[in-house]
Amino acid sequence: MSGAEEYWGFIKDPLYGYIRLTDVERKVIDTLAVQRLRRIRQLAGAEFVYPAANHTRFEHVLGTMYLAGVVCESLPVHLTGEEKQKVRLAALLHDVGHAPFSHLFEPLLLKYMGRNHEDVSRWIIAESTLTGVINRLGFDAEELSGLAVGKPSKSDRPFLGQIISSSFDVDKMDFVVRDSYHTGAGYGSVDVFRLIYTMDVLDGNLAVDATALSALESLILARLESFKAIYFHRASRAVQMMLLRALEAARTDLTILEAKTADEYMEWDDYTVWSKLYANARSREIVREIAARKLLKCAYERTFYAKDELASSVFTNENVRLKLEEEIASKAKVPVSDVGIDVPTLPSVPYHYAMNIGPIDIPIFFKTRSGEKVPEKITKLSKVLDDLRVFMNIVRVYTKEEYRKQVGDAAADVLGESPLSNVLSY
Amino acid sequence: MSGAEEYWGFIKDPLYGYIRLTDVERKVIDTLAVQRLRRIRQLAGAEFVYPAANHTRFEHVLGTMYLAGVVCESLPVHLTGEEKQKVRLAALLHDVGHAPFSHLFEPLLLKYMGRNHEDVSRWIIAESTLTGVINRLGFDAEELSGLAVGKPSKSDRPFLGQIISSSFDVDKMDFVVRDSYHTGAGYGSVDVFRLIYTMDVLDGNLAVDATALSALESLILARLESFKAIYFHRASRAVQMMLLRALEAARTDLTILEAKTADEYMEWDDYTVWSKLYANARSREIVREIAARKLLKCAYERTFYAKDELASSVFTNENVRLKLEEEIASKAKVPVSDVGIDVPTLPSVPYHYAMNIGPIDIPIFFKTRSGEKVPEKITKLSKVLDDLRVFMNIVRVYTKEEYRKQVGDAAADVLGESPLSNVLSY
Amino acid sequence: MSGAEEYWGFIKDPLYGYIRLTDVERKVIDTLAVQRLRRIRQLAGAEFVYPAANHTRFEHVLGTMYLAGVVCESLPVHLTGEEKQKVRLAALLHDVGHAPFSHLFEPLLLKYMGRNHEDVSRWIIAESTLTGVINRLGFDAEELSGLAVGKPSKSDRPFLGQIISSSFDVDKMDFVVRDSYHTGAGYGSVDVFRLIYTMDVLDGNLAVDATALSALESLILARLESFKAIYFHRASRAVQMMLLRALEAARTDLTILEAKTADEYMEWDDYTVWSKLYANARSREIVREIAARKLLKCAYERTFYAKDELASSVFTNENVRLKLEEEIASKAKVPVSDVGIDVPTLPSVPYHYAMNIGPIDIPIFFKTRSGEKVPEKITKLSKVLDDLRVFMNIVRVYTKEEYRKQVGDAAADVLGESPLSNVLSY
Amino acid sequence: MSGAEEYWGFIKDPLYGYIRLTDVERKVIDTLAVQRLRRIRQLAGAEFVYPAANHTRFEHVLGTMYLAGVVCESLPVHLTGEEKQKVRLAALLHDVGHAPFSHLFEPLLLKYMGRNHEDVSRWIIAESTLTGVINRLGFDAEELSGLAVGKPSKSDRPFLGQIISSSFDVDKMDFVVRDSYHTGAGYGSVDVFRLIYTMDVLDGNLAVDATALSALESLILARLESFKAIYFHRASRAVQMMLLRALEAARTDLTILEAKTADEYMEWDDYTVWSKLYANARSREIVREIAARKLLKCAYERTFYAKDELASSVFTNENVRLKLEEEIASKAKVPVSDVGIDVPTLPSVPYHYAMNIGPIDIPIFFKTRSGEKVPEKITKLSKVLDDLRVFMNIVRVYTKEEYRKQVGDAAADVLGESPLSNVLSY
Repeated sequence: MSGAEEYWGFIKDPLYGYIRLTDVERKVIDTLAVQRLRRIRQLAGAEFVYPAANHTRFEHVLGTMYLAGVVCESLPVHLTGEEKQKVRLAALLHDVGHAPFSHLFEPLLLKYMGRNHEDVSRWIIAESTLTGVINRLGFDAEELSGLAVGKPSKSDRPFLGQIISSSFDVDKMDFVVRDSYHTGAGYGSVDVFRLIYTMDVLDGNLAVDATALSALESLILARLESFKAIYFHRASRAVQMMLLRALEAARTDLTILEAKTADEYMEWDDYTVWSKLYANARSREIVREIAARKLLKCAYERTFYAKDELASSVFTNENVRLKLEEEIASKAKVPVSDVGIDVPTLPSVPYHYAMNIGPIDIPIFFKTRSGEKVPEKITKLSKVLDDLRVFMNIVRVYTKEEYRKQVGDAAADVLGESPLSNVLSY
Repeated sequence: MSGAEEYWGFIKDPLYGYIRLTDVERKVIDTLAVQRLRRIRQLAGAEFVYPAANHTRFEHVLGTMYLAGVVCESLPVHLTGEEKQKVRLAALLHDVGHAPFSHLFEPLLLKYMGRNHEDVSRWIIAESTLTGVINRLGFDAEELSGLAVGKPSKSDRPFLGQIISSSFDVDKMDFVVRDSYHTGAGYGSVDVFRLIYTMDVLDGNLAVDATALSALESLILARLESFKAIYFHRASRAVQMMLLRALEAARTDLTILEAKTADEYMEWDDYTVWSKLYANARSREIVREIAARKLLKCAYERTFYAKDELASSVFTNENVRLKLEEEIASKAKVPVSDVGIDVPTLPSVPYHYAMNIGPIDIPIFFKTRSGEKVPEKITKLSKVLDDLRVFMNIVRVYTKEEYRKQVGDAAADVLGESPLSNVLSY
Repeated sequence: MSGAEEYWGFIKDPLYGYIRLTDVERKVIDTLAVQRLRRIRQLAGAEFVYPAANHTRFEHVLGTMYLAGVVCESLPVHLTGEEKQKVRLAALLHDVGHAPFSHLFEPLLLKYMGRNHEDVSRWIIAESTLTGVINRLGFDAEELSGLAVGKPSKSDRPFLGQIISSSFDVDKMDFVVRDSYHTGAGYGSVDVFRLIYTMDVLDGNLAVDATALSALESLILARLESFKAIYFHRASRAVQMMLLRALEAARTDLTILEAKTADEYMEWDDYTVWSKLYANARSREIVREIAARKLLKCAYERTFYAKDELASSVFTNENVRLKLEEEIASKAKVPVSDVGIDVPTLPSVPYHYAMNIGPIDIPIFFKTRSGEKVPEKITKLSKVLDDLRVFMNIVRVYTKEEYRKQVGDAAADVLGESPLSNVLSY
Repeated sequence: MSGAEEYWGFIKDPLYGYIRLTDVERKVIDTLAVQRLRRIRQLAGAEFVYPAANHTRFEHVLGTMYLAGVVCESLPVHLTGEEKQKVRLAALLHDVGHAPFSHLFEPLLLKYMGRNHEDVSRWIIAESTLTGVINRLGFDAEELSGLAVGKPSKSDRPFLGQIISSSFDVDKMDFVVRDSYHTGAGYGSVDVFRLIYTMDVLDGNLAVDATALSALESLILARLESFKAIYFHRASRAVQMMLLRALEAARTDLTILEAKTADEYMEWDDYTVWSKLYANARSREIVREIAARKLLKCAYERTFYAKDELASSVFTNENVRLKLEEEIASKAKVPVSDVGIDVPTLPSVPYHYAMNIGPIDIPIFFKTRSGEKVPEKITKLSKVLDDLRVFMNIVRVYTKEEYRKQVGDAAADVLGESPLSNVLSY
């Protein structure tokens, strides 16, 4: 562990100011696995709505590492220097597995590689050129690969993993405030430090003091607003749909999906995939439309809330969805290839996984007058969060600008009348 | 109206940058009535929790005037230059009636003068030395006095008043973001400009485009969090209770309550009242305790939500409250003067009025596919806001630090067991 | 020292987020001596230019304490827990001696009490009710009273005092960024943490690594711009001149100047002095003009730079100044009491003391290729700072609005033609 | 000009909030020429020092257009709706000619195409697929191509061009504050709106009121600090040097340099160039080193200031520089290919052009007491700016990490002893 406790220097972050790095951290940061994240944008598609949203996974993992360190320093239980360093490294590495365009690529990873980005993070940490670097620095790459996805080794205490991956982990805290900063969307003014400073460990598990309830509500509401205003924005989703189509079309030329080794996988990033799609005859047309911002238009939209997921799951069945697309296209008298149903609550959809973790799971404790710490369900304490235990289902039908009217009418016919039909935002 | 359309110069505001003033506005600002607001703090008591919360009504009315002007410029209906100037002036003057320590003094105004601060605003605008200034500038002081509290004259269109006083007026927008800025509490990152830019007028009334729903939800949630974290904070309420007691004790020496003229009323501000309380034998002791931050402590707290106000209205009866205080004091074996029940939802309580305006009232419209604007209940569109149609009831029992334990136990006995008993925040 | 190492809780600051307090600190904060600073504004007069500039000495001393703590943690030399606590306490207490309206009152303190605010800080720390609190907490009040003004006891190392009072101390860092935040003036975006993180101790003295030169230049330039845009702003100076005149007029009723004990002195703050001036027959008229913002106007202004102070020192002689005022009044045919010469570089002027500390004094070091730390004159390294080794001399003549023209002409006649004669800002 | 005065909607910018777009603007923005700027980063290389510095030319041109519009609205001279729209469009288009990696590519453009990026902007506006779009919207593409680089047509007034390109144009204002925001460097807190609101037109030329002198000084100083802390940072320059070497090596495969048409030129952006360099055998090695952040290290650095450029121009001669590199390499006993002299003041260096515009050129005016506007040299009014009329010359020698010591010694021998030899920043 040489260098784990020696400070090497600082990196400046626009959110947290100076982030202090140990020598170990610097050496891990200066590897291709981490540096590659400089070329993977955090929110592929959102930049078409928020022009400043060009931030990358690289900044995000640095911020996540920083917050993980703040939690380690602040918790009222003892952590050894080695434990702290492991948690910070795991936070730094938690996203190394992301494919180009982050979550956008996720359905392809699942479909053609049978892995999600967390599986790939483990793969890269444990079986790439990064692995040797970690081991030579005196850490166990295998162990870190688990901790990075929230699964500490048996010998570790559970809360160490929960810092990185749980219902209110440092990953979510960082992305909510960072996405808000770079988009300017303004929903992310969350007091993450209040949350962190009131965390404690109960029976080995991370828990939040009920006195920070307002901060917790804010975090969860900010995340919800972010979904609506950023991740699921109509134009942002249009770009994502188009890019996914381009990726499917050019799939056989994207050798990332046949990568035999983690190092081969890491050859691919936003730059190389985009250039490939741009040059490839099968994807070229659609990518050029994105490049000139000729986006698919939302002709129909419907939002509804449900206590369980069933409400939208009817669309998760690809056959059902295709059937409906055909019906709408036929009624609208447009080619079926120009009609696309988008259901951002589908499991295959970016960020969906983040929605799965209901606020209900967050462990809260309060202190009795005698000073005892008693766990409590958050939904008993928070009216707002109790009410939010629902799934937001959005169903949209996209088409070309010139078909907007007839596809909108046909969709209303097939899927029911929709209350909203126009937006001002870009 | 000489000077109404001539720009005089700028004032710098930390939230909105440069606020451009007309010559008329400058002349109205440079009167005692408006300048006095420099010595009336926006959030009396909150500075004991958030040391930087020293902002005044003066900044707030400038900000409110600015936002009113932005609405006027942005609405898609025609406003004459004179109408715009009237709305800006009314916004500037809407708070001139505030008594020292803003809302804190409100119960005394009601009890001894039979007026609230809005009544006093009208009085000052229509019957003080300010009146002549306004009239000489070519405006009708009587008319402005109505507009300033949201009641435009018959000849004016209703939405002009709603800009200044309604369920989503520029007053609330300004105070939510301003209180957040100066406290650093971080709940006020509301996209007020999105709200403003999507406003329209339907049948003469102000309405918000449903596409700004997220911004509207944020405003209402930020206001709710502000109540919990700032206005109703335990220590902040302790200071308010103590100041109220001091004011009651020294009441007969505060000639503000016997002011015969609006000009006499305006002789009083935070500075003069504080100095009087500090010097007065009847209030001196309690004020010195505030001055050295020896605050009453919260021995018991209970929060509950109810669909109507009844839940806490049992406490609004002063006799009932006194009875309960006696019972707790007796059980706890402490002097009854050292037990105080605080119910921030009581009508007499600061900011309560702002809670009365349920989100349910906000007029929303959406555009049909044919372009028609259709009004809709906000609660049909917003799951979150529908759920928030409740009243937050907080009941607290305060006492001296040394009696905390026994009063807490006695209160739990009398009022039921309370889930939370301690806070970390200052 | 019971409680010095136990954390008690947090205070939220809008600049630094959560400031962690020890139990000792909380007990010292909750005294009248520190709490009184809540009623002493940081920048008396500036709020007439920047309406949001209502921040107080209380926030400033908390911020100063926080930064002092960051320096202590960051310096690469060992400090004991006790040393750190002493430095933080001294920073917290460094401004307790301020008179009402901060620097504005300074000339009166000097003239009638023969002390400056630092002398009074020492007096209060060592000889008031605060003294006992400090001593009972296990600290030596006498020793802290020296450290608070940058004079550590013999047993202490010199750099401990320099953290609090030197040419780049935490006091200046805090006020530059805080004044910028609350005014919105925007000159204070200084990277104070870069400065702090590169500090070291050379031969017992605090020094800054030359790699932070840019941050240091920014701090000094921001301070310079702040003087021009905030502290020496024409309207701000007008208010200060008027308040000073009111104070002189009502002086015999302000018993603060005859305070026999430090506790008597502390009875006075902005609130009590303002109320006294407002009620006093001799000061009432001028204070009412301030209250309605009828300010003196600047009829003449001249700025020049000089390598030494001599350039403006001609005006420091009160007799010379009076003579010139008479000459101008006579030429302009206005009463001499309506002509006032203001020279913000005069020693008696607020903030002047801060100008005295030239950037030349700042100890800088750089590392040679062999790793040795070598001290160097900052002016050898920084072209900008070398050039700024000058004194900015501003001479202004104020009068009533109606005499502006003739007084301006007369002043130009007597003092030479001035290049600038008008401003847009409020 | 259909659509020039109709508002279409908003784009959200993190610096200025909502930017309102006309229908014309939206149509020009949604072309490949403007959208391509999404894939050209503003500060190539700086992200290796400031991880969040991922902003693109696209955001910058939107911000520049916005500020241009604010100037047009604010100037006290009349502009027609058409003039305003032309200025905003020209500002939007001023950077369309940038090559991949912005300024970094500039020397290659000059060397192999004989054009700079402004020439290419004109080319694209006047002779690409964009040209038709502009003309069809009722504007004269040829005329706009001149205005976009600050050269209005004869029929236009000179100040229209100066808004976009002059010594204090909206381009510089935007990049200084935007670079500060995205890096977090904190040198860019410039009050650009104060500058803009005090602008006027004197004899057809743009001029700034002397009352905004402080804001002007801040802008120029912030730009200077930005150069030191961001653009000329050692690590940032190392990346730029390495990328330039890769570009030179792979030059013959980058057909951008042989582009026959403006549309061919626009096929290239950061993504496609990076992918090409990554795949190309001649550049692959050096690009992989960048990708893993194995950067060249600065072994020697010297900074000096001179009144004219001569001081560093000795190095501008490529032969001299090569000679010195050989001499150092020979003394240090390392391959000459591992020694590189970098002189960021060389004309061929990115951003140099921006340094050329001395503050001396900025037209300032002040108002005499009689109200006349009189032009004045800024250096007569500003001591700071007068002193800054120098050229900052930095000479650095870079080499591989392992040769740092011997190359540093050899360079000191050849070029003189250097005062600074180490940095903390990343």
